[in-house]
Amino acid sequence: MTLAVGMRPPLDRLRALLANVADLAHAQQVLEWDSRVSMPRRGARARADASATLTRLGHDLLVSDEMAELLEELAPVEEQLGRDSVDGALIRLTRRGWERERRVPGDLAAEMTRVSNIAVAAWDEAKAASDFHSFVPHLERQLELKREYIACFPATDEPYDVLLDDYEEGMTTSRVTEVFDTLKRTLVPLVAEVGGRGRDDALLAGPFAIEGQKRACAKILDALGFAADGWRLDETPHPFATNPGLGDVRLTTAFSEQDLHSLFSTMHEFGHGVYEWGVDPAFARTPLHRGTSSAVHESQSRTWENLVGRSPGFWRWFYPQLQSIFPDALGDVGEDAFVSAINAVRPGLIRIDADEVTYGLHIILRFEIEQELLAGTLAIRDLPEVWNARVHDYLGVDVPDDAHGVLQDMHWAIGLVGYFPTYQLGNVMSVQIWRRAQDELGDLEEQFARGDFAPLREWLREHVYQSGSMYPPRELLLRVTGSDLDPQPYLDYLTTKFG
Amino acid sequence: MTLAVGMRPPLDRLRALLANVADLAHAQQVLEWDSRVSMPRRGARARADASATLTRLGHDLLVSDEMAELLEELAPVEEQLGRDSVDGALIRLTRRGWERERRVPGDLAAEMTRVSNIAVAAWDEAKAASDFHSFVPHLERQLELKREYIACFPATDEPYDVLLDDYEEGMTTSRVTEVFDTLKRTLVPLVAEVGGRGRDDALLAGPFAIEGQKRACAKILDALGFAADGWRLDETPHPFATNPGLGDVRLTTAFSEQDLHSLFSTMHEFGHGVYEWGVDPAFARTPLHRGTSSAVHESQSRTWENLVGRSPGFWRWFYPQLQSIFPDALGDVGEDAFVSAINAVRPGLIRIDADEVTYGLHIILRFEIEQELLAGTLAIRDLPEVWNARVHDYLGVDVPDDAHGVLQDMHWAIGLVGYFPTYQLGNVMSVQIWRRAQDELGDLEEQFARGDFAPLREWLREHVYQSGSMYPPRELLLRVTGSDLDPQPYLDYLTTKFG
Repeated sequence: MTLAVGMRPPLDRLRALLANVADLAHAQQVLEWDSRVSMPRRGARARADASATLTRLGHDLLVSDEMAELLEELAPVEEQLGRDSVDGALIRLTRRGWERERRVPGDLAAEMTRVSNIAVAAWDEAKAASDFHSFVPHLERQLELKREYIACFPATDEPYDVLLDDYEEGMTTSRVTEVFDTLKRTLVPLVAEVGGRGRDDALLAGPFAIEGQKRACAKILDALGFAADGWRLDETPHPFATNPGLGDVRLTTAFSEQDLHSLFSTMHEFGHGVYEWGVDPAFARTPLHRGTSSAVHESQSRTWENLVGRSPGFWRWFYPQLQSIFPDALGDVGEDAFVSAINAVRPGLIRIDADEVTYGLHIILRFEIEQELLAGTLAIRDLPEVWNARVHDYLGVDVPDDAHGVLQDMHWAIGLVGYFPTYQLGNVMSVQIWRRAQDELGDLEEQFARGDFAPLREWLREHVYQSGSMYPPRELLLRVTGSDLDPQPYLDYLTTKFG
Repeated sequence: MTLAVGMRPPLDRLRALLANVADLAHAQQVLEWDSRVSMPRRGARARADASATLTRLGHDLLVSDEMAELLEELAPVEEQLGRDSVDGALIRLTRRGWERERRVPGDLAAEMTRVSNIAVAAWDEAKAASDFHSFVPHLERQLELKREYIACFPATDEPYDVLLDDYEEGMTTSRVTEVFDTLKRTLVPLVAEVGGRGRDDALLAGPFAIEGQKRACAKILDALGFAADGWRLDETPHPFATNPGLGDVRLTTAFSEQDLHSLFSTMHEFGHGVYEWGVDPAFARTPLHRGTSSAVHESQSRTWENLVGRSPGFWRWFYPQLQSIFPDALGDVGEDAFVSAINAVRPGLIRIDADEVTYGLHIILRFEIEQELLAGTLAIRDLPEVWNARVHDYLGVDVPDDAHGVLQDMHWAIGLVGYFPTYQLGNVMSVQIWRRAQDELGDLEEQFARGDFAPLREWLREHVYQSGSMYPPRELLLRVTGSDLDPQPYLDYLTTKFG
C-alpha cells in the first residue's frame, strides 16, 4: 500500500497513516447512517459487502507492518511525553487500538461488519412484525462471532470483560456488578415506593401532531446549540447519533403521536452530538477525535436528556412554547403538572422511554441477560420467555409482544453486546460531572429558565468534550470531578428528586 | 494488503480483487450522493479528504502488483474466450481500466477527487449567489488537474481525446466534431425556422405547487418501473442518478413552482436508473455492473425523458391525472395544447430545460468551450463573456446572470470535462435504438396511452441494459441496431416532429 508517507518523521508518518484509517471510518459511518436513514431495503446485501470491505481495509492499515514499526519507533517518544501531550495521547491510543486489532483476524473483523448489516435489516423487519423467531439465526450468528472475537484475546476473569473493554477502557464485569448491586439496593425499593406517583396519563394523552413535535425539537435543538450548517436531524425507528467527520453531526429521533418521547430522545442524541462537536478540531482525522468512552458519551446524552431536559428550569423556558404548539393537548395543563408528569416514575416496557428511576433496571436486566447468553446458560430460543419474566420481576409489567420486549433495541443486531452497562455507568458519571458544573456555574436552573444553555455547554466543552479521547475515561472523570466512579451522587440525586 | 485471495484460480482471484475495488466505489458513490443530498455544508472539507482516500485505496488495489500479475496470467485465457464470454469481457474491461489507471499517479487520482468535493461545494455557493468570481480558482485548479491527467497518457490527436475516452471508449474529438457539424447544418436552420412555434407561455404559467409535482413524479415513476424497496427519489439543485450497489438506485430532481421541468428531469434520471437496475445482477461487484458508456447512458435518459416523456401517447395516459393534480393551472388547458406546449421550440438559457431541437446547441457550445479552455485559448476570466456571447449567437437569447449562464451546470465543478458531448451522442443513439424497438414492438404510443411501459422497458433491458459493460459502446450499438453511430435517424426524427 503506497501511502505517500515517505521518509518523514515518524510522528508525521503515524498521523498520515491514521488519517487514512480515520477516512475509512468516516466512510463507514456514512454508510451506516445511510443504511438506517436512506438506503432502499433491497440494497442491504450489497451494503453489507461494501461495509465489510471497508472494515477489512481499515483493519489492514491499522495492523500493517508499517504501523508496527512506527509504534516501536515511537515507544521511547511516548515515554518522554507527559499525560497532557497530544502526541503522547495519540501514540498511546493508537497502540491500544493496534494491540486489540492485531489479535483479530481481518476475516473475522470483516465478517462482524457484514453480519451486523444483515442482522440490522433482519431486526428491522422482525421488530415491525414482532417476530422474534425470524431474528433468531441472526442473533445466533452474532453471539458466535462475539465468542470467536473474545477467543482472540488473553483470558480475562469474565469473557464479558473483553467486550466491555472495547466500549469502556479498563472497565470490568466485576466492577460493573459491584456498582449495579449498589444501585439495585436503592433503586428496587425506590421504585416500589414511588412507582406510579405523579402518574396522570390523561395529562400527556395527546395526540401530539408529528409536525408540531418536529417544530418543538427544532426549537429546543437551536437553543441547546444545533448549528444548521453542521448538524442534521432525521427520523429512524431507533434514535442514534453519529459524526462521520469534522463539521458533520447527525442525530435521529423517532416520533409517535401518542407521546412526547421524541423531545427527550432528541435531547439525548444532542448530548452525543455536542460531545463530538466539542472535540478540539485539531484532532480531526485521528483517533483522538471522538468521545473517550461509551459511558462518558452516555453521561452526556443522559445529562442533556434528563439533568437538563427534565428539569423545572428547562420547562420554565420551554413549556409556554410547547403549549402554543399543542394548544388542544396542553392548553389546560399547567406547567407544574406537566413537569411532574414528565418526571413521573412509571415502570414500563421500553428502555428509551423510561423515567430516570426505572431506567437503571432496564439496563441491569440487559447486563445480566447478555452475560447468560454469552456463557450459554440461557438459550436463544428461551430468550423471550426469560426476558418477559424478568421484566415482570424487575418492573412489574407484562410484555405484550416481542416488539415491546426483547426486540425493542437494535444493539444486539448491530453486534453491540457489552454496551448496555455503559448507559447506566453514564448515568452515574453524569451526576458526578453535573455536581462539579453546578459548583462552578451557580444556578443552572435559573439559566435554563431564560433559555440560556451556553454556560453549561461551554463548561462541558472545556472540561469534558474538548479533550476528545486524550484521557482514558477513568482519568478524565478524575480530572473533571476529582473522584473515581462513584454511584453515591447519582443515588442522592434520585432519592432527592424522587424519594 | 491481505486480500484473502490465497491460491485460488486466477479468475476467482481477479473477481475477489475487483469486488474490493467495487466496494470502494460503492462507498465513494454513497459519499457523493450524501454530499449532495444530506451532508451539512461544514462537513465538506472532511468529506473531501475521506473521499480522496477512498480513491487512492481503490487506485492502489487496481494498479497493485497482484493485479498486474493476474492480468498477465489471464492474457491467454482472454484470447480464448469469445466476445460473448462474461469472463472474457471482465478481463478485457479490467485490463482497460488498469491500462488507464496505472498511468495516473495515486496522488493525482486522490487530488482530483479531493478538489472535486471542494469545488462542488464552492460551485453550490457561487451558483446560489450568481458569483462566477468566487468559482474561478476552483475551475482553474480543475483545469490544471485535467492537463496533468492528460499528460499521463500517450499523445493523442487532440488532448481532449484522453478525457472523451474515459466516458466513451474509442470516441475521438474529430469524430464528435464531424457528428456535431452534421447536426449543426440541420439544427441551426431548424431553430431559425421553428423557434417560438407552439410557444404559448400562458398555457404553462402555473403555479404548480411542489407537493403536486412530487405526487405527479411518483405516479409517473411507479408506472415506468420504480420499485419502492430498491429506488429512491430526492431533491437537489442539479438532478442526478446514482447506483451504489445492487438493489439501490437513487434519483434526484429539482422543483420550481413556475414550471413542470421536474417531471422531465425525473424521467431523465429514471432512464439512468433503469439502465443500471437492468444490468444482470450476476455482474454485481465487478466493473461489468454498470452502463457501458456515458453516451449509451444518456441515450437511455433522453429516451425516457423525450421519446417517451414528450410523446402524445404518454400524455394521453397521464394528462388527465396531471389535470386532476393541478385543476387551477391546467383545468382549462386541453391535452393537445398541453402536448404542443411541452414540445414548443423555445431557445432558452438552461440546458436541462431545453426542448429537443435547441438542446444540441447547448451541448455544441459547451464542447467548443471545453476544448478552448483546455487548449488555453480561452482564459477563465473571460469565460462568462464568451459564454454569453455564444449563447446569443447560437440561441439568440441574452444571459441575465451567471447562475443562468456559465454556472448552471455542476459538471466542471465535479471535474467532468469531456462529458457534455456524450449527451448529444446519446440523443443520436437514442433514436437509432428507438427505431429498432419500434420495429419489434409495434405501436409504442398506443401502449403508452394505456400507461403500459413494460414492453419497452423489458425490450431495452434485454437488448441494452442487461449486458452492462460487456460490450464497448460501438459494439453494443452495432449489436442492437446493426449500425454504427449515425446522426441521420435523429435528424429525421427532429425534422419530422418539429420541421
